[in-house]
Amino acid sequence: MRALLKREAKPGLEFTTCPDPTPGPTDAVVRVRATSLCGTDAHIYNWDPWAHSRIHPPRIIGHEMCGEVVETGADVTLVAVGDYVAAESHLTCGQCFQCRTGQAHVCRNYRILGVDRDGSFAEYVVLPENVLWKTAPTVPPELASVQEPLGNAVDAALVEDLTGHTVLITGCGPTGLFAAAVARTAGAATIIASDVSEYRLALAKQVGVDHVLNARAEVSDTLASNIRDITAGEGVDASLEMSGDPNALHLAFGAVKNGGRVTLFGIPTGLVTCDLANEIIFKGIRVHGITGRRLFSTWYRLAGLFKAGLNIKPVITHTFPLSGFAQGFDLMRSGQCGKVVLLL
Amino acid sequence: MRALLKREAKPGLEFTTCPDPTPGPTDAVVRVRATSLCGTDAHIYNWDPWAHSRIHPPRIIGHEMCGEVVETGADVTLVAVGDYVAAESHLTCGQCFQCRTGQAHVCRNYRILGVDRDGSFAEYVVLPENVLWKTAPTVPPELASVQEPLGNAVDAALVEDLTGHTVLITGCGPTGLFAAAVARTAGAATIIASDVSEYRLALAKQVGVDHVLNARAEVSDTLASNIRDITAGEGVDASLEMSGDPNALHLAFGAVKNGGRVTLFGIPTGLVTCDLANEIIFKGIRVHGITGRRLFSTWYRLAGLFKAGLNIKPVITHTFPLSGFAQGFDLMRSGQCGKVVLLL
Amino acid sequence: MRALLKREAKPGLEFTTCPDPTPGPTDAVVRVRATSLCGTDAHIYNWDPWAHSRIHPPRIIGHEMCGEVVETGADVTLVAVGDYVAAESHLTCGQCFQCRTGQAHVCRNYRILGVDRDGSFAEYVVLPENVLWKTAPTVPPELASVQEPLGNAVDAALVEDLTGHTVLITGCGPTGLFAAAVARTAGAATIIASDVSEYRLALAKQVGVDHVLNARAEVSDTLASNIRDITAGEGVDASLEMSGDPNALHLAFGAVKNGGRVTLFGIPTGLVTCDLANEIIFKGIRVHGITGRRLFSTWYRLAGLFKAGLNIKPVITHTFPLSGFAQGFDLMRSGQCGKVVLLL
Amino acid sequence: MRALLKREAKPGLEFTTCPDPTPGPTDAVVRVRATSLCGTDAHIYNWDPWAHSRIHPPRIIGHEMCGEVVETGADVTLVAVGDYVAAESHLTCGQCFQCRTGQAHVCRNYRILGVDRDGSFAEYVVLPENVLWKTAPTVPPELASVQEPLGNAVDAALVEDLTGHTVLITGCGPTGLFAAAVARTAGAATIIASDVSEYRLALAKQVGVDHVLNARAEVSDTLASNIRDITAGEGVDASLEMSGDPNALHLAFGAVKNGGRVTLFGIPTGLVTCDLANEIIFKGIRVHGITGRRLFSTWYRLAGLFKAGLNIKPVITHTFPLSGFAQGFDLMRSGQCGKVVLLL
Repeated sequence: MRALLKREAKPGLEFTTCPDPTPGPTDAVVRVRATSLCGTDAHIYNWDPWAHSRIHPPRIIGHEMCGEVVETGADVTLVAVGDYVAAESHLTCGQCFQCRTGQAHVCRNYRILGVDRDGSFAEYVVLPENVLWKTAPTVPPELASVQEPLGNAVDAALVEDLTGHTVLITGCGPTGLFAAAVARTAGAATIIASDVSEYRLALAKQVGVDHVLNARAEVSDTLASNIRDITAGEGVDASLEMSGDPNALHLAFGAVKNGGRVTLFGIPTGLVTCDLANEIIFKGIRVHGITGRRLFSTWYRLAGLFKAGLNIKPVITHTFPLSGFAQGFDLMRSGQCGKVVLLL
Repeated sequence: MRALLKREAKPGLEFTTCPDPTPGPTDAVVRVRATSLCGTDAHIYNWDPWAHSRIHPPRIIGHEMCGEVVETGADVTLVAVGDYVAAESHLTCGQCFQCRTGQAHVCRNYRILGVDRDGSFAEYVVLPENVLWKTAPTVPPELASVQEPLGNAVDAALVEDLTGHTVLITGCGPTGLFAAAVARTAGAATIIASDVSEYRLALAKQVGVDHVLNARAEVSDTLASNIRDITAGEGVDASLEMSGDPNALHLAFGAVKNGGRVTLFGIPTGLVTCDLANEIIFKGIRVHGITGRRLFSTWYRLAGLFKAGLNIKPVITHTFPLSGFAQGFDLMRSGQCGKVVLLL
Repeated sequence: MRALLKREAKPGLEFTTCPDPTPGPTDAVVRVRATSLCGTDAHIYNWDPWAHSRIHPPRIIGHEMCGEVVETGADVTLVAVGDYVAAESHLTCGQCFQCRTGQAHVCRNYRILGVDRDGSFAEYVVLPENVLWKTAPTVPPELASVQEPLGNAVDAALVEDLTGHTVLITGCGPTGLFAAAVARTAGAATIIASDVSEYRLALAKQVGVDHVLNARAEVSDTLASNIRDITAGEGVDASLEMSGDPNALHLAFGAVKNGGRVTLFGIPTGLVTCDLANEIIFKGIRVHGITGRRLFSTWYRLAGLFKAGLNIKPVITHTFPLSGFAQGFDLMRSGQCGKVVLLL
Repeated sequence: MRALLKREAKPGLEFTTCPDPTPGPTDAVVRVRATSLCGTDAHIYNWDPWAHSRIHPPRIIGHEMCGEVVETGADVTLVAVGDYVAAESHLTCGQCFQCRTGQAHVCRNYRILGVDRDGSFAEYVVLPENVLWKTAPTVPPELASVQEPLGNAVDAALVEDLTGHTVLITGCGPTGLFAAAVARTAGAATIIASDVSEYRLALAKQVGVDHVLNARAEVSDTLASNIRDITAGEGVDASLEMSGDPNALHLAFGAVKNGGRVTLFGIPTGLVTCDLANEIIFKGIRVHGITGRRLFSTWYRLAGLFKAGLNIKPVITHTFPLSGFAQGFDLMRSGQCGKVVLLL
């Protein structure tokens, strides 16, 4: 089959031919229909220090995907040939405290598709049946593929109820934009979003954000003051930090009202200096670290959100064939894109 | 001032003239702009046994309202003359365990506007400042008035998060319809509603219900089977019992999935025979009794819901002048109405 | 091996010899050290209508147990020969909505040890590795065996926090007594318990109940009045209904304060007439139906409770050898016992 | 009356005579029986930069107290002459979003006893009736006085349930020790505590801590490794950071298991450098900032905890007469004390 292979420990990917995968007894083979580009893939593509320490070539990468089941192992019961499925990318151990208490999203031993085993930037991928998620045929492949990062956004946004509440989203990358769309569908009262890119703020408008703030154009004090004005001096009920940028982080903490809550999802590069007394303690707030997706309650909820009218189409700004991957990674570097999807 | 007075212990109300109310030091006088008819008012109008035992004439009745502050007592600081306000109808004691622990909606000693003191079916009403709720001028009087029962619906619907979840609403009286509208705004995946009135099921469609079931036309088994079909055999995540009817109640319990939740809001007439083992225990569900509105978090949330696009206009089916009250009560008896509002 | 077999569809059990069980690839064989008598076993022993409709002889019954792993299937990784284990008695499907969302305790397709497959009233029992619970060697067999019903009690008591709160427990059978012990360890402020048996009220005192009420000796009004006195007129924060008796149920609802919570665990025989308006709705309470045990968070918590000093020894009133089972069932019928354990 | 007065903007306090306070219509005068020394008082005593910016002399300081009501204003109904009371030290506005939604502990406009108005280091203090907390006569004055910081500890410890869970407490000052005692009463499985003072670790043992770690004697890696050993490699369910020390903070985050929770209560001096990715996000934990006490649910719960056997006596290490205040502050500086109480 054709696949994008990290053959050696260096930048780039090779569009090449690899052997078709074969399923174990509880596995299924999926013919990939769409597979989307994540920041993690960009790290591996660019071969940064994190990738160097984590990836052992040769490796087919890619972990956001959807497709059709074309073969199943002898013991498979959850899916059947012909099923249209997406995939949970975290293969959890099933044995640790977290897995055995309904918290498999923070499994201590999970392995990642396209990182720890061959992934979905390929015509076919083999996966354990229990990570496959049957998707309604009404969801087109480019949307079905991004359910994985969309699930992150669902947990980031809905870890506490947003209905009727005001929310600030700092960072309008794809997952931040997904979170904005989720907040809109969830009946948030007012959605404010900040980013340094006008391109992405325009996308934010398209998914229903009420107020966009350009964090590059405006100094932090002005941003904070704008948020106070929008919220009549109260601050927001919830801040979702989706960028990893320290300035955005402080904006998020500063904007939340006493007794409110902050989601931390964006990964800072390195350490961050925090004023824990004024940002967390005296405000009496709750902070939620979000990683992965709740298995599988988030996936079920996501299916419900699509029925409720969740509109994430504006976030899918570009599609390419598998061979067009380099253009996709170039776009990601430029920031002039939402989500980039490879269609097969 | 003109007012609707229950002068004696018998059916009916008298459209008459009463003295203008005067405020105590922490009170405000509100010129009523709209005041809506509730089932409680109908009980008093019809002078049923409950009313007989509870109401001590003479009494101006009415407790759902909005209007303009026209006079304030010496110590009032929360509102000012000219403010556009609605009213929380429960005057809580502030001293019981419930009041002192953030649960004033279940205060042990609360008094009700229009029941325990003169109410809002009048040109003016006097109220303690702390039950007045400043309302955005963009909310028209017929909607501002119904915020009180809408608050019931908010608590009934949102006592647990509905975003992305399936919900059954049994009973499409005004509060049931409000709950459906709230569920729609909150991003419920699928909303199913049942009632015995085609008129009200048509209103349910208008506030966004996906599937309406006529509980008169269909036998219980068919209703239950329809719900199973709609939910692909899973049952609903949440049932909101908004009718008080025993059949509806059993439908609500039967439809909810294992581990789901049921809201009880509709008041049954007398005792109900329940199969607690199969309806609650073996299903491992949660049941929430809902009464009143959370003070004042529900009111804040309600303001947020209006911003999020909550559409309850279809529920306000009829308006009359104060003098047209009898027509309003006749309509309520007929069931051919949603909410009836008196406009002054 | 020796075992207690329900050979035919009639009352009684036969103490006989059966073939030793053999493990499948993910199973383990456990040599039973202790196995305790549950109400379900008594139903089967007495062959009542429920048993008649549910059990298909021949069947070795029994589902509360502990023992030592003596053999493991080829693929077993969670336990090893020599491990001291108890067993979760519900074998869940792993595939339904509930199982996939961390709610396997309300799995739609679970099978029960000793009911749907051969159980633990035997020298050996074969079980899937994933229902085995490694138990600290410091927990003696008669206590390790009862962890299954103790888990019910943990969920019944701790579905909401009890620390510093007042609690009423109606019904002092073994699970009610376990719940009382859990409430004591959890730092409940005041524990009140009711039962019709002086024998069991004496046990209640031994596990730390502060106030015992004899529901046979006192009329309901007196019971309610006693509880009001004990709680200075406030009512209790939490009621745990552990008996299934309708009078106890109404006592539990009547005693809880506005805004409090009620656990329903005891299974009523048939239908119960409820005053939902006054018992649930106007009080604004939460009702939790409890069945099974949360997998496996409740088991982890239980291990923690033993470390915290949980004292359930007084509840284990009688032990017999496997052959003494008839005496055990006789004792259960008499009510002059707590938990009865068969030791092997 | 005799009182401790900060007469001028400089270090120290003056033991002097001040006019007896007189009550407003909703106030009560309390004859102080015990008043305890808090870190805030020490800041004011030492006149550090915070005190300089916050306190406007002349001011009678002190905010932890109990005593007897000796006079009440005309409109007082909550307390009566002769009542034995403690005081909530935060006088909240009653009008902000937080106050109106049951979150008065994070009121945006609260004033503090002994900081913004004259406090309790005096024979008499005047207070609004609604901050007085009737205390059981069985609680001796030195314990009744410390209910205020004990309430902090209750919220820090019990913001999520501790029953059956493992907990790390970093910092064994009085509030940390109180939190340890609360955790013990709440049925925590295992309590680990760290501090740099052997004196305080000895107190920790006395309130029921299972494992004490000297943070001065052991390097961070050893501490972390000890905690892993104690928890069999799992980490703790909950970390309570009660010191404000950055090393302790990182220990707290490092020790908590994936999916666990961290309370932040200790106030760091200045900014802290955090590894948010590894300490919060990838672990998927919740962080709770704790300030003040929930009004008045925490006070009710505290009364329940005393009934449940809460043992905080070992924390009250020293008592002095009002005139002995300087010795008390000297002791606090030395760290060779738990809580110091002035008895009148």
